Amino acid sequence: MDYKDSAWQDSMRIRLDYTNMTADAIGEEHGITDKQLDDLQPITDEIHRQLTERRKAGELAFMDLPYQSKESLSKIIELSKYVRGKFDNFILVGIGGSALGPQALHQALNHPYYNLLSKQGRNGSPRIFFTDNVDAGKLKGLLDIISWDKTAINVITKSGSTAETMSNFLILRKALIDAVGEENYAKHIIATTDPKKGALRQIAVSQGYAALDIPPGVGGRFSVFTPVGLLSAAVCGIDIRQLLAGAAYMDKLCQSGKLRDNPAYLNAALLYLADTAKNKRICVMMPYSSSLQYSAFWFAQLWAESLGKKYSVSGDVVNVGQTPVGAVGATDQHSQLQLYIEGPFDKVITFIRVQDSGYNIPIPLAFLQQEGISYLGGHDLGELLLAEQTATALALKSNKRPNCTISIPKLNAFTMGQLLYMLQVQTAFAGSLYGINAFDQPGVEQGKQATYALMGRIGYEDKKLEIEDKLAKQNKWAV
Amino acid sequence: MDYKDSAWQDSMRIRLDYTNMTADAIGEEHGITDKQLDDLQPITDEIHRQLTERRKAGELAFMDLPYQSKESLSKIIELSKYVRGKFDNFILVGIGGSALGPQALHQALNHPYYNLLSKQGRNGSPRIFFTDNVDAGKLKGLLDIISWDKTAINVITKSGSTAETMSNFLILRKALIDAVGEENYAKHIIATTDPKKGALRQIAVSQGYAALDIPPGVGGRFSVFTPVGLLSAAVCGIDIRQLLAGAAYMDKLCQSGKLRDNPAYLNAALLYLADTAKNKRICVMMPYSSSLQYSAFWFAQLWAESLGKKYSVSGDVVNVGQTPVGAVGATDQHSQLQLYIEGPFDKVITFIRVQDSGYNIPIPLAFLQQEGISYLGGHDLGELLLAEQTATALALKSNKRPNCTISIPKLNAFTMGQLLYMLQVQTAFAGSLYGINAFDQPGVEQGKQATYALMGRIGYEDKKLEIEDKLAKQNKWAV
Repeated sequence: MDYKDSAWQDSMRIRLDYTNMTADAIGEEHGITDKQLDDLQPITDEIHRQLTERRKAGELAFMDLPYQSKESLSKIIELSKYVRGKFDNFILVGIGGSALGPQALHQALNHPYYNLLSKQGRNGSPRIFFTDNVDAGKLKGLLDIISWDKTAINVITKSGSTAETMSNFLILRKALIDAVGEENYAKHIIATTDPKKGALRQIAVSQGYAALDIPPGVGGRFSVFTPVGLLSAAVCGIDIRQLLAGAAYMDKLCQSGKLRDNPAYLNAALLYLADTAKNKRICVMMPYSSSLQYSAFWFAQLWAESLGKKYSVSGDVVNVGQTPVGAVGATDQHSQLQLYIEGPFDKVITFIRVQDSGYNIPIPLAFLQQEGISYLGGHDLGELLLAEQTATALALKSNKRPNCTISIPKLNAFTMGQLLYMLQVQTAFAGSLYGINAFDQPGVEQGKQATYALMGRIGYEDKKLEIEDKLAKQNKWAV
Repeated sequence: MDYKDSAWQDSMRIRLDYTNMTADAIGEEHGITDKQLDDLQPITDEIHRQLTERRKAGELAFMDLPYQSKESLSKIIELSKYVRGKFDNFILVGIGGSALGPQALHQALNHPYYNLLSKQGRNGSPRIFFTDNVDAGKLKGLLDIISWDKTAINVITKSGSTAETMSNFLILRKALIDAVGEENYAKHIIATTDPKKGALRQIAVSQGYAALDIPPGVGGRFSVFTPVGLLSAAVCGIDIRQLLAGAAYMDKLCQSGKLRDNPAYLNAALLYLADTAKNKRICVMMPYSSSLQYSAFWFAQLWAESLGKKYSVSGDVVNVGQTPVGAVGATDQHSQLQLYIEGPFDKVITFIRVQDSGYNIPIPLAFLQQEGISYLGGHDLGELLLAEQTATALALKSNKRPNCTISIPKLNAFTMGQLLYMLQVQTAFAGSLYGINAFDQPGVEQGKQATYALMGRIGYEDKKLEIEDKLAKQNKWAV
């Protein structure tokens, strides 16, 4: 079962079933017609040409990450061995794209109660903690449970000055210094940041931290296959070469400019048509697997931040962007499904279905006189989950709610590589369909400026006065 | 600082600031005018009269849970002491309302790394695990890390036959019996279910499990103040009397029929108007606290399942329901905020702001020559979080995005009681504004039936043939 074996790879190919998105299945009012898809082919040809050119010109660096140099991978693996050999705790400090990708991989591929295993149970990997918020209680809680002599920090920020990440880092760094001494602390830190620019890079150089590069052309939400996602994965024992092989395999599947042959383009086109032609403004990602909840959150960032834009590339005000919602099956059948089935016709649901859970867990035959539960006995738990996904897709279909299913033969590094790569290409292509820039995030700038002002950053004095004046003058309504 | 002290209670009152929901703040196109609110007062009077009557008639049992009998509380506390004295692990098996409330309380009020603490660090409480999905990998993972002689199970299902819950229970029960013997296993189990009806009640009686009642008139999503939420809370050391005192305190604040005086009615009215008058179909709940993420998920169930309805109470097809989305600040500023600021004008955001985190964590002064981060030093971490919430609310306001803020003085059992009670009353009132039944969930029935059929339940043979025929006959589209 070598992941390089092409028959094995083909057996692990993920598939997109879009039957229940079609007008054929749910009618023309809510379903997409053949003609609507066909009408997108000419623009798809043009976008495909542009994307191919831009990729060749090195402008879509994320697409080539599956083929990164052996040296760059070796450096990551070497550092991961250093961490595994020396430390019992690994704290990843990052936010947004610098935390979601690592968390998605961790949850999908490591033991569900990873931090509760013994070090032996983790095959020698350290426990892992994600510090992805400025939350005093949570940070204090972390300090309660780690011992610094056995703890490494991986601080990740592309710009090198992200306020939340650097605040957490400065606090953890001081605690580390207090515990192990100024002369020893640098050996506990790995900085992942821009190769040359930014405060963190300069600090890393001056303090002598080990450091990894985030390629300058790769944005945070497209960085899971850079050291951002790869170091913590390798530290926890995930085979990052297999992960990248999966991404490369998906890249091959996405070479065609024909909508109906390219899973990433097709899924983008279906969601785009659902939004713009059928008014499905909400796009639910609902994996039937507790291990993929963070993958749904990761996708939510990718889709929301890439496509939620005020201006088109030509400068028109468009205010576009489908709203992604993460859900988990079967759990959310008991929470969100009522709304999806009976509420407004404003949603499209993407299921992720894992065909083989990897475990046979039979439901015991017991209490056979209890008719309400006796039918469960003798079935496998995984069978129940798959039956529920099938039943839910059917119920949505009967109620004319468009839905599609990404099928994954089995969760492993190879299929996760495929999934995350496909969703990134899908997002880039969708950006072109919407006619917006999928790679910037101008809307968050204003809030950042206001935070700088409120925190007293030099150069923001006028802004601070302006904000205070605004807050003082506004009518307040409260109860 | 006794929670019964009324001055302390008043100092812990939670507030709703709706300044940025008003036309005064964001203009009439997206903001709510005084007139629109005033126009809702007559219908509010009528709804208030009805709710008051129904409550008196015992039809809104959830509203009276803060005043449940001493005996019922004593039984819960007694059982919690039994669990604490005898067990190191406590597995809660439930789904939907039977898991979300318990998880919300656990995350809000217990240590952020609770299961990683020593038993002493947990003040003698057992570790807690939530089995809220049929996920073979996760269940297998749980079996890896527990030792059955020290493990208790709390199985929760109101109907007594929820497929996911009872499947998980049957599997765990068998593993327990294999480990401790048929004659000893019942002492490890507590069943929380209908007082009389259903398979689980009958099993509990026949097997001799300890059992707690879910009052028949209280639905799953309104059950957090029943033994569903209270037992696990007490087991982990949460003061459930204080929790109920907070709920009772909020009940007092919600006595008025005047929209502008009643925080629950007012918040319902604002969200209802945002949806129906301003086309804000999406309602984001964004606590600025990692401890409140599950509270947002809990609310998402409450709002979605209560309000997402096809039929009005008078039988018209209405297909209503705002779509709730859970987010966490500051984290999701780096994920969803771009869309909220620049995307379609289809959202209203409810922030939850915790005024006092309870911890002073100064950001150290360091690397002062790095202008990009030097401004952070000397501030408190909690100060940064509050500044970010203020800045985000302002940025949304400047972009004419309606938002309001629920302010919580400090997270504790008393304020959590207030928050969860308020949101339940708000949901019941909103149901009346929409003219739908907030207490049923007919839309999930179809999927359940299909699951029964696929799993071979007796009586569903025809349904099974029908489904198989449908699946065989449909055109399949996949890539």
